[in-house]
Amino acid sequence: MPIQYYFEIIGTVVFAISGALAAGEKSGQDWFGVTFVGFITAIGGGSLRDMLLGSYPLVWINDVNFIYAIILGVVLMRLFYASLQRYRRTLSLFDTMGIALFTILGTEKALEFGVHPVVAAIMGMFSAVMGGVIRDTLTNSTPVIFRKEIYATACLAGAILFLILNYFDVHRTFNFLISGGLIITIRILAVYNRWSIPKFK
Amino acid sequence: MPIQYYFEIIGTVVFAISGALAAGEKSGQDWFGVTFVGFITAIGGGSLRDMLLGSYPLVWINDVNFIYAIILGVVLMRLFYASLQRYRRTLSLFDTMGIALFTILGTEKALEFGVHPVVAAIMGMFSAVMGGVIRDTLTNSTPVIFRKEIYATACLAGAILFLILNYFDVHRTFNFLISGGLIITIRILAVYNRWSIPKFK
Amino acid sequence: MPIQYYFEIIGTVVFAISGALAAGEKSGQDWFGVTFVGFITAIGGGSLRDMLLGSYPLVWINDVNFIYAIILGVVLMRLFYASLQRYRRTLSLFDTMGIALFTILGTEKALEFGVHPVVAAIMGMFSAVMGGVIRDTLTNSTPVIFRKEIYATACLAGAILFLILNYFDVHRTFNFLISGGLIITIRILAVYNRWSIPKFK
Repeated sequence: MPIQYYFEIIGTVVFAISGALAAGEKSGQDWFGVTFVGFITAIGGGSLRDMLLGSYPLVWINDVNFIYAIILGVVLMRLFYASLQRYRRTLSLFDTMGIALFTILGTEKALEFGVHPVVAAIMGMFSAVMGGVIRDTLTNSTPVIFRKEIYATACLAGAILFLILNYFDVHRTFNFLISGGLIITIRILAVYNRWSIPKFK
Repeated sequence: MPIQYYFEIIGTVVFAISGALAAGEKSGQDWFGVTFVGFITAIGGGSLRDMLLGSYPLVWINDVNFIYAIILGVVLMRLFYASLQRYRRTLSLFDTMGIALFTILGTEKALEFGVHPVVAAIMGMFSAVMGGVIRDTLTNSTPVIFRKEIYATACLAGAILFLILNYFDVHRTFNFLISGGLIITIRILAVYNRWSIPKFK
Repeated sequence: MPIQYYFEIIGTVVFAISGALAAGEKSGQDWFGVTFVGFITAIGGGSLRDMLLGSYPLVWINDVNFIYAIILGVVLMRLFYASLQRYRRTLSLFDTMGIALFTILGTEKALEFGVHPVVAAIMGMFSAVMGGVIRDTLTNSTPVIFRKEIYATACLAGAILFLILNYFDVHRTFNFLISGGLIITIRILAVYNRWSIPKFK
């Protein structure tokens, strides 16, 4: 199993935690609802990317470990619920690692499909953020990409850096670290300094 | 034509009735909106399942009878609108039969695709409930799966029973009746006794 | 390049303008949000149609010019924002041309896929309106197809006329003009005369 596989599994656990926590904080949610939202958050972005690319079979449909990873994420979330709520910044860091990982993996996968780099960057960003967008739509919240701090734009920046370094044949592991690191850095700086994209008007 | 085909058509009519009725009760809906919502409710879950599985062509795109079944459902709903509103429990029974039917048919279809039984159960549940979820998202209601009584969980239970009996080579028709019957029984008991899944917190 | 290609590009620009404008009028939207909504509006309907048909690769994934067309639409929207807001009827005319174009192109594409004409008409209508439906769902507005004036029904009427004329071997360009013209005419008359579909009750 390549290292990338374990990254995908870890990203899935992290996203399931983040989705289940978002649902769990809504009053009146039952265990099924919390698990369902964790599930959608974890597999939504990657599934949409693969359905747009026509890349079948979808990863989680072909490998039940992704389902187990989601269930693990929901259980972990319940066990550490109090701590997770207290250390919201930590959780936000989990989500940040998740979007960094999924952006780069998604961009690379799209590129392997032979699409134009501009489209690959969009696919990478979609992989990272669309699970959260579906989660927010289902729970009637404002989609995460429309909220204040820089979010999807950080993913786009990381995807573009990955594509540039890839073009210059930078070693893959190195590229993963630098491009993913850029996303994480931008997100952390954006949250601490309240950076945001210029308002439209 | 196998008996399963007629079941699918009946399930489509029933779901179109249930979707059109939900839309028709919102004030100000016109005939197009009511028909559109009936359509989405009827084909949404199965279409999502098939797009996730990569099972092309989609059933209703390849067979116009499903469109006619939906139009029939909307017309029936209008003709019996007063009665349907009076006997809400009857309609709920229609919806219950629809989800029982679609869960088992969807689980079996996913299994034939060679997916892991856990994934097949999820696909069966998706077939049954995701049309309603899309309907509720479009009409700005709380998605049916997040509401009080046991709903999607009943589908999961029926799907799991179907998979177990299927594993032990129980005869298909017999399995359909028992597993579908379990879903209907759980739903009826849940509605009458206000059973619900434990709250998350 | 056939003339149809330029029509698709123009329709994409027009839809991106219409989507970005809708998002830009919501207070607090940033540049990313406006561009994202323009993007979804422009490619949503056609992508859904192609994913339902299993028609891969999707048009915009295979041809980066569609991405550039969307960016052009967003930039044009910003440059002419004041004028576009003043002449709302003009913009509505842009949107009308967009849905006319996409309905006919979508109906024809579905027909080439060998689907039943009834399904082709639905696919044509989906191509035209579903981008707007996704846009409205993401921005928590009432989906455009549920609003007052005749909208999706005009698309259906145009698609049906296209199918009838196509059946009688009317020349394609001629058919495009007549069927698309019908959609534009119905929409303009509906807006000016406040025509609407009969209420359901």
